[in-house]
Amino acid sequence: MELKIELAKNLKPKPRDEAALGFGKLFTDHMLLMNYSQDTGWHNARIAPYGPISLDPAATCLHYGQLVFEGLKAYRTDGDRIAMFRPDQNITRMNESNDRLCIPNLDVEDTVKAIAKLVEVEQEWIPSSPGTSLYIRPFILSTEAFLGVHPAKDYLFVVILSPVGAYYKGGLAPIKIYVEDNYVRAVKGGTGFTKCAGNYAASLRSQVEAEGQGFEQVLWLDGVERRNIEEVGSMNVFFVIDGQVITPKLNGSILSGITRKSVIQILQHWKVQVVERTLSIDEVAKAHRDGKLQEAFGTGTAAVVSPIGLLKWGETPMTINDNKIGELSQKLYDEITGIQTGKKEDLFAWRYYVK
Amino acid sequence: MELKIELAKNLKPKPRDEAALGFGKLFTDHMLLMNYSQDTGWHNARIAPYGPISLDPAATCLHYGQLVFEGLKAYRTDGDRIAMFRPDQNITRMNESNDRLCIPNLDVEDTVKAIAKLVEVEQEWIPSSPGTSLYIRPFILSTEAFLGVHPAKDYLFVVILSPVGAYYKGGLAPIKIYVEDNYVRAVKGGTGFTKCAGNYAASLRSQVEAEGQGFEQVLWLDGVERRNIEEVGSMNVFFVIDGQVITPKLNGSILSGITRKSVIQILQHWKVQVVERTLSIDEVAKAHRDGKLQEAFGTGTAAVVSPIGLLKWGETPMTINDNKIGELSQKLYDEITGIQTGKKEDLFAWRYYVK
Repeated sequence: MELKIELAKNLKPKPRDEAALGFGKLFTDHMLLMNYSQDTGWHNARIAPYGPISLDPAATCLHYGQLVFEGLKAYRTDGDRIAMFRPDQNITRMNESNDRLCIPNLDVEDTVKAIAKLVEVEQEWIPSSPGTSLYIRPFILSTEAFLGVHPAKDYLFVVILSPVGAYYKGGLAPIKIYVEDNYVRAVKGGTGFTKCAGNYAASLRSQVEAEGQGFEQVLWLDGVERRNIEEVGSMNVFFVIDGQVITPKLNGSILSGITRKSVIQILQHWKVQVVERTLSIDEVAKAHRDGKLQEAFGTGTAAVVSPIGLLKWGETPMTINDNKIGELSQKLYDEITGIQTGKKEDLFAWRYYVK
Repeated sequence: MELKIELAKNLKPKPRDEAALGFGKLFTDHMLLMNYSQDTGWHNARIAPYGPISLDPAATCLHYGQLVFEGLKAYRTDGDRIAMFRPDQNITRMNESNDRLCIPNLDVEDTVKAIAKLVEVEQEWIPSSPGTSLYIRPFILSTEAFLGVHPAKDYLFVVILSPVGAYYKGGLAPIKIYVEDNYVRAVKGGTGFTKCAGNYAASLRSQVEAEGQGFEQVLWLDGVERRNIEEVGSMNVFFVIDGQVITPKLNGSILSGITRKSVIQILQHWKVQVVERTLSIDEVAKAHRDGKLQEAFGTGTAAVVSPIGLLKWGETPMTINDNKIGELSQKLYDEITGIQTGKKEDLFAWRYYVK
């Protein structure tokens, strides 16, 4: 794949205070773009100055939501090398989203290489303080201009970069979650397993109501029985019950998280028993009553591992592990961020070196 | 509300052949725009030349799908007056979509007036052949540039216009439908009752597969029991069984169609028995076996009334009314299009005159 590079004439000032980075508010000087048309497939891959995207008002993405995205991170590792964390997994998953939304597939290897080049161009933007990273956001939008419920013929693939701090203002600290029993995020046969824009639009109302009540995120139950645990906000979720680590199995409505997958692999390597199965909220509540709910945590690219300190189901507040960071949560956080930042051995070849 | 008007310097040629209009491919010379910001609310309403929308690549609509739309039509009526069909209903429904997606509400009256002004400016674009109209597409996109699953602070309201012919190439003719038993469109607690972009993205795969098998649309079943009838493609659906007209009741996952509502009102006025209730596909199949399934039709703004000639459920093809346009379907089509085009008395004050 040929990749053209047009460098920006004027560079923005880099942020001076890495502690104030926040998440997703600041963007670098360049972006990666690639077009798709029916005749030529994906073409015209280019790194260009970060700037506005011009869309016909009838572009189908604005009406019918043919929009998918991914999220991954690049880190400064020891010796000032730069590594992305499992980027092939993201582009492979993007293709699964693409299939469900009738968007043409990307070449995984070429796309990862092009993203690596963008990160290399923007390397001075990568922060180095603990907990910081360069967040990478690939996304695809349909650009054909017509009104009608059909897949578009033209698409644009874009990657933007954002230097980020901790996803939660407080950093690694137990979060408060409530069990959502009114709104539903996804159902089998729908788009729950994809990272399509519509899933996130559907979750906003619930997120706003949770924050209004002092919670960071919600716990989603399945859309059919309204009993089985699916995800936490925009993370996968794990429970440690009686020494066993349990996470909901992938059933079509749950996102196949890359951090989820990595956690499972690490636990197996550690010989910790981890099970993917259907898990109901009743079972979690009973385990709590019986004193067997030892830890709970969310996993995702943005926050990596988020210990859950309080889980509220209806009128029942369940404090977990005295609202402290659990031993396993901390160990997993340290292991994964250690691998990401080059401080721990890359046992599973998850680091993809940019330079 | 103040409405600024900037007219285009160069006008596009109007289409000469109204029979070749198709649907949603051609757009007029101007559009209506209005901005929202947290400080000032909706402001800067303006009619401007039709042209590209410029978005920051981090605009949240492209990532998290805060996007809603509406669809309505304007017609040339007798005496060369121009009327829209029930536009207040569309903007009221848009506010229901807005509420679910955390988008600020519009003022219904002001918005309808602004749309009427746009239609007036573009009146020469309104075709006059039978079955043609000016399709009006209001939509809202979130424009704030940040990455994070939260409602945006800034929005853009846009209205574009497209002169259209029949939605189905063949005009009013029975369509072929199959019952979708793999993919699910929406579930209670989700966004099925709204016109948000994500709902339509979720339906594309199914639509493509249906067309690949020679069907025009799919019949959606509910996401929980996978038994109860919800909608047809992007239309509401009615069945005439043993002299009674039945349509699925609004349950949170079905769109509250304006044509649906109008059909019910007309039937009641005609003293035809019409019932809104849960209706399973099994019941429809049984009625067909018993010779009691007399007609079936979809209703929506694009196609108005679409008779269903064939319904396929698994391996069971059900031909309805000998694959001919049903008497009631035809009568409803004639009545509604008659009211829309000023050929029939406007019994319910549904016409909104633009000039």
